[in-house]
Amino acid sequence: MSADKPGDVFAEALALHRAKGGKLEVASKTRVETMADLALVYTPGVAEACREIVRRPEAVYELTAKWNMVAVVTDGSAVLGLGDIGPLASLPVMEGKSILFKRLAGIDSFPLALKTREVDEFVRAVALLTPYLGGINLEDISAPRCFEIERKLIEACDIPVFHDDQHGTAVIALAGLYNALKVVDKEMGRIKAVLSGAGASGTAICDFLLAAGVRQIIVCDRGGAIYQGRPDLSEAKADLAARTNPGLEKGSLAEVIRGADVVLGLSGPGALTAGMVKSMAREAVVFALANPIPEIMPAEAKAAGARVVATGRSDFPNQLNNCLGFPGIFKGALAVRARRINEEMKMSAARALSGLVSDSELAPENIIPTVFDTRVVPEIARVVAEAARNSGVARI
Amino acid sequence: MSADKPGDVFAEALALHRAKGGKLEVASKTRVETMADLALVYTPGVAEACREIVRRPEAVYELTAKWNMVAVVTDGSAVLGLGDIGPLASLPVMEGKSILFKRLAGIDSFPLALKTREVDEFVRAVALLTPYLGGINLEDISAPRCFEIERKLIEACDIPVFHDDQHGTAVIALAGLYNALKVVDKEMGRIKAVLSGAGASGTAICDFLLAAGVRQIIVCDRGGAIYQGRPDLSEAKADLAARTNPGLEKGSLAEVIRGADVVLGLSGPGALTAGMVKSMAREAVVFALANPIPEIMPAEAKAAGARVVATGRSDFPNQLNNCLGFPGIFKGALAVRARRINEEMKMSAARALSGLVSDSELAPENIIPTVFDTRVVPEIARVVAEAARNSGVARI
Repeated sequence: MSADKPGDVFAEALALHRAKGGKLEVASKTRVETMADLALVYTPGVAEACREIVRRPEAVYELTAKWNMVAVVTDGSAVLGLGDIGPLASLPVMEGKSILFKRLAGIDSFPLALKTREVDEFVRAVALLTPYLGGINLEDISAPRCFEIERKLIEACDIPVFHDDQHGTAVIALAGLYNALKVVDKEMGRIKAVLSGAGASGTAICDFLLAAGVRQIIVCDRGGAIYQGRPDLSEAKADLAARTNPGLEKGSLAEVIRGADVVLGLSGPGALTAGMVKSMAREAVVFALANPIPEIMPAEAKAAGARVVATGRSDFPNQLNNCLGFPGIFKGALAVRARRINEEMKMSAARALSGLVSDSELAPENIIPTVFDTRVVPEIARVVAEAARNSGVARI
Repeated sequence: MSADKPGDVFAEALALHRAKGGKLEVASKTRVETMADLALVYTPGVAEACREIVRRPEAVYELTAKWNMVAVVTDGSAVLGLGDIGPLASLPVMEGKSILFKRLAGIDSFPLALKTREVDEFVRAVALLTPYLGGINLEDISAPRCFEIERKLIEACDIPVFHDDQHGTAVIALAGLYNALKVVDKEMGRIKAVLSGAGASGTAICDFLLAAGVRQIIVCDRGGAIYQGRPDLSEAKADLAARTNPGLEKGSLAEVIRGADVVLGLSGPGALTAGMVKSMAREAVVFALANPIPEIMPAEAKAAGARVVATGRSDFPNQLNNCLGFPGIFKGALAVRARRINEEMKMSAARALSGLVSDSELAPENIIPTVFDTRVVPEIARVVAEAARNSGVARI
């Protein structure tokens, strides 16, 4: 239990899960009440749908739910803030993600929680299941294994594979940053950004900010700033060092954050202090994204001089929530039967999301739409489908 | 297209599949309209459901849909009468099966169509997915691979694994036979039964009839009667020879069917002729189960002297349809969180199904309830759960 959230929400959530026996169910889109119905949905009528797919394999997108089906795939190795709790205990989160796909974007989604930690075995099992899938949403897989799994699955599959903890988070963070920089009147190419956290989401955000034109990024892990030549770096972090921190700044987060325009917290409670925020440049932007307890509470960050503060939480302004991204991104990809989700598609999603806050609405406490804003999914889906077509990964 | 079924049903079925974009969808059992709802079904509230499963793994049956979830698993190697059309083209059938699970028994069911023909790879991939599954329904997998897959999956999993083409068919056939023998006043232990077809369902029916007390069974494949020592037998058929045909009868189906009390067709149209039926014992029982065109048409079999005729079709009396079995069998197994589906459970299902036709209702044209008879699923589920408890495979 967190000191910050009432135990009530946990007790109520547990009661809800128990009352319903889980949150997800499968339903029929068609009536089956008579023998005549049965003859259409099952034998003998169904045989004609099979024969049509034999004749024309792409008909599977027309005659089955593949066109709209996204698997939520995990090994349960990095679930929320709970860590490595395994596939069984991950299931409430995966069911939750699946029903959000349905609720927010009308996408049919199903959890696949695999009990293995072997990368190749995991990849192979998921790749075998692609006949019925329109897309694959990887979820809550620990770094650095998630990078290898995603890379190998993308190679093995001809449908979109998207690790939401990486790319979904990156899209939302960049959308928020576009608008935060408008508020403080700074340019993407001139800011100094510091990231606290070099896991899956930190790495993905870093790459996405680089692609968006940020030049000076310093990523910090528990050992402080990551720089080329730091002796203890893993392969993934050495790669990160090669494309960030051009000034080879060394030292703790508290040291390298001095003078930064933006800090993005992707680590955990307490990682940012008022003193750190005070040491940042004027009109500082603080994204404290750890859930459920941010790296620093918004009131404290504001008091320390931050102009724009965003968190992952719904009870503070500026909620940077992944639910703003994945539903529309997949909806757009599915609409054109995209073969993959590429940088162009993600970048267009971030731009579209930030664009939904008009200049007149834009304010330090209002840099991002809310999760239930009905414009979000259709607008992101529209631009993602367009970007897929323009970048040559659309099938239709 | 069959000569027997109007092309209309095929055209209508195709239009239905196209209009709906498939037949299956995923739905949420819980409301997600507000940020407060979101906090319960997703972060932060969902974390408490995860923690409860960490503390007490069996809580996964209470807090997720695992308690009610059956995967319909295939490689598409033996789909309906269409043969080896592969996993993609099998999907309309698998979706159909899944929605029948829901419609007939309220069970949530999801297709897993795997693109592999390697037995061990298939088994391993399915076994990795068991965290979210309450049961596994194997479907439309060719013999003899289906036997090995089922055996290995049962070893690898702690949930029921049931190849419906084998055991579902066997349960229904035995239920029909119980009542057919009542009609003709013959005893299970004294009949001579001939099976035409030594594939998955033929083999399973043979074993089930033996377990039910039939002593004299002759199985025929394309090479005629299977007997111990026949030179061309595969391993599976040599096994079959060892437990059937005690009199070592040799020859074609037409030769060994002479004097038989019962014939079960599990092969294809034309396998049985009027001449063969005429050569059977008085009051012959003919189950012509090939779909959609039976081995012999009921009118022809009746004219040739058969007293009881059953088929798989809904437009003739006595429909021996698998939909009478799998929904209730799985419902009963799920109700007690059974570790497997054993002979006792299947046998009790067959007895219960035949028992639903009262002695006063029993007639040559009425040996089995209809698919939409609402007594079928609850009654089978009840006896299957009881048999699971009595045989020690129930968890609760």
